[in-house]
Amino acid sequence: MAADLQIYEGAIDKGLEGVVACTTGISSIQDTILSFRGFDIQDLAANSTYEEVIFLLWNDRLPKAAELEQLKKDLSAEYALAPDLLKVLKTIPAKDVHPMQWLRTAVSLMSHWDKEANEPSKEANHRKAIRLTAKMGTLICAFEAIRNGREPIAPKKDKNIAWNFMYMLKNGQEPKTEHVKIFDLCLVLHADHELNCSAFATRVTASSLSDMYSAIVSAISALKGPLHGGANEQVMIMLKKIATIEKAQQFVKDLLSAKEKVMGIGHRVYRHGDPRAKILRQVSDKITAEAGEHKWYEISILIDDTMQKEKGLMPNVDFYSAAVYYSLGIPIDIFTPIFALSRIAGWVAHANEQYANNRIYRPRGKWTGKMDQKWIPVAQR
Amino acid sequence: MAADLQIYEGAIDKGLEGVVACTTGISSIQDTILSFRGFDIQDLAANSTYEEVIFLLWNDRLPKAAELEQLKKDLSAEYALAPDLLKVLKTIPAKDVHPMQWLRTAVSLMSHWDKEANEPSKEANHRKAIRLTAKMGTLICAFEAIRNGREPIAPKKDKNIAWNFMYMLKNGQEPKTEHVKIFDLCLVLHADHELNCSAFATRVTASSLSDMYSAIVSAISALKGPLHGGANEQVMIMLKKIATIEKAQQFVKDLLSAKEKVMGIGHRVYRHGDPRAKILRQVSDKITAEAGEHKWYEISILIDDTMQKEKGLMPNVDFYSAAVYYSLGIPIDIFTPIFALSRIAGWVAHANEQYANNRIYRPRGKWTGKMDQKWIPVAQR
Repeated sequence: MAADLQIYEGAIDKGLEGVVACTTGISSIQDTILSFRGFDIQDLAANSTYEEVIFLLWNDRLPKAAELEQLKKDLSAEYALAPDLLKVLKTIPAKDVHPMQWLRTAVSLMSHWDKEANEPSKEANHRKAIRLTAKMGTLICAFEAIRNGREPIAPKKDKNIAWNFMYMLKNGQEPKTEHVKIFDLCLVLHADHELNCSAFATRVTASSLSDMYSAIVSAISALKGPLHGGANEQVMIMLKKIATIEKAQQFVKDLLSAKEKVMGIGHRVYRHGDPRAKILRQVSDKITAEAGEHKWYEISILIDDTMQKEKGLMPNVDFYSAAVYYSLGIPIDIFTPIFALSRIAGWVAHANEQYANNRIYRPRGKWTGKMDQKWIPVAQR
Repeated sequence: MAADLQIYEGAIDKGLEGVVACTTGISSIQDTILSFRGFDIQDLAANSTYEEVIFLLWNDRLPKAAELEQLKKDLSAEYALAPDLLKVLKTIPAKDVHPMQWLRTAVSLMSHWDKEANEPSKEANHRKAIRLTAKMGTLICAFEAIRNGREPIAPKKDKNIAWNFMYMLKNGQEPKTEHVKIFDLCLVLHADHELNCSAFATRVTASSLSDMYSAIVSAISALKGPLHGGANEQVMIMLKKIATIEKAQQFVKDLLSAKEKVMGIGHRVYRHGDPRAKILRQVSDKITAEAGEHKWYEISILIDDTMQKEKGLMPNVDFYSAAVYYSLGIPIDIFTPIFALSRIAGWVAHANEQYANNRIYRPRGKWTGKMDQKWIPVAQR
């Protein structure tokens, strides 16, 4: 067996670029087309709700009316946090911690009140998926309340995930229908993205046959990094630093003479443009105008168009989601947790796909260190 | 750039077997030789302490006397848990939870009391590595105390990690020197193992430039799975089920006629034997005899020798560590947390090696799902 084993060294230290790790039927990226379960993201963005996309990602087909109702019912029954969990969450330092750090702890902690946390059956995994997906928004909004010294708002069972998130985040202020629709669209767009770093982290952890919570905690841990989930946050920080159209023109000039990277521009997989960015560019135009801050859009398109024309680089999803979330009044450091609120749908699908056809991830390293060292007593070193 | 990109499909759904993910100078596996930083594990097992191995793994050389003393001092200064952390830990459900589930939560939680949790500098990462390594045993023993309704024992600053672990685990009973030596040897043997699943999970999470705690939480999440850290626990459960030499003979006969796998036998990378198993086989002989339960050794070697002779399969590290830990009076479900207590040294080294030469892990999936689906209104489905 050892003799048969091919060793592939073509992608060493390149983050497995160009290596196919597994088969998948969840989402695919073909040139500029992203599809979930074979449905073009543009089609889903135009027609689906986030809840419908959850069903699609988990079941490989669109739900019938009764199935969609059942999923919504199952989710809403799990929106609320266990009172004892909430009690503990209130005792955990929430100031000067990273929101994703808090979320990582909270999701891990949540498992302690789930009697099925370590039960590996398909049915238990589905119930855990429902719980994780239903409670993600409630947890994030509990964090926002707790760190601001407020009592967390309880979710409403007759509303969807997008509505509840905006309602709880803003301390019980009912969100505008149009804002909920835009936010729901954002959840649809971010729900999965093939083998991105956090989906891959989900699969690596699941591959030891570790449980669903462990897989999702790993995903949150990976998403926390500035090269992954942190990108749209960085885009907004950049936009705020630029602040005016005049400065944006100077910024763009400086860009062309320097070799600096711009956050939110370029993508390893999309060489010819990210379809989600195209959709969000239009949304950004509208929502920033409505918020009376169209300049964020104007600064964005100036950078985007220049980078496309002069450097052939296209914006990715993070580039336009930044100003959209900002215009919806969402705190900048909550942008990454929102990513988790949406991507949980995909993570769960990846965990289940991994469980269904599993081999433990265990690549090799290429040795570049010293060899044949000999231990010598400490006095002789 | 797209045109240049080679796509490698040779290891799809094989857990990246035979794929070299990165260069590494931490540990290497060459046929039956495991070495840490170029030092043969047999050499280290015979001569080094766990603390010396920590220094070696983190610094790529053995410590001078003063450096080793400094490391021990730095570690012992961080043994104790923050009182507020311990207070919260006592409020978290510890019964009917998996010890690794509790540890995952506890390590994530610990970061909330670390002001440097999200600080990415090399110096801060070193201090976090010290804290994580120093507190891992304290956390595990706090868990054992809390779930048994006892007050956790405080660690002693003038003792090493192995001594403190056995002391705190057994509610303040001073461990025998010989037992501490054996346990320390176990910590040495498990301290790293090239790109095993949890080390790889560490690197995947670190590759988004997520923080050290997130990387270690991912590692714990991956180690939790029965295909990884859970294996020696399964070995002991098997040995206890067999219970007698007579039944072991029947067990072995049944094995030969069936195609069943035996926990702890065989390894993806070692085709000709795991050097750690050889060392632990001798330790098991001695310690089981001393504990008055030599039968665990006798059952083990009967299975081992039969599998080698009849099926050409060799035992791995988990096969003999099981009876060793059991003879040391360690509860079976604490075997995997012990793995974390030792492997934290390697995980930290992998996180730092990844940070030093990083590209985000983002492999590809091979699409096997449907294509060209069209959204249709729910009423028409």
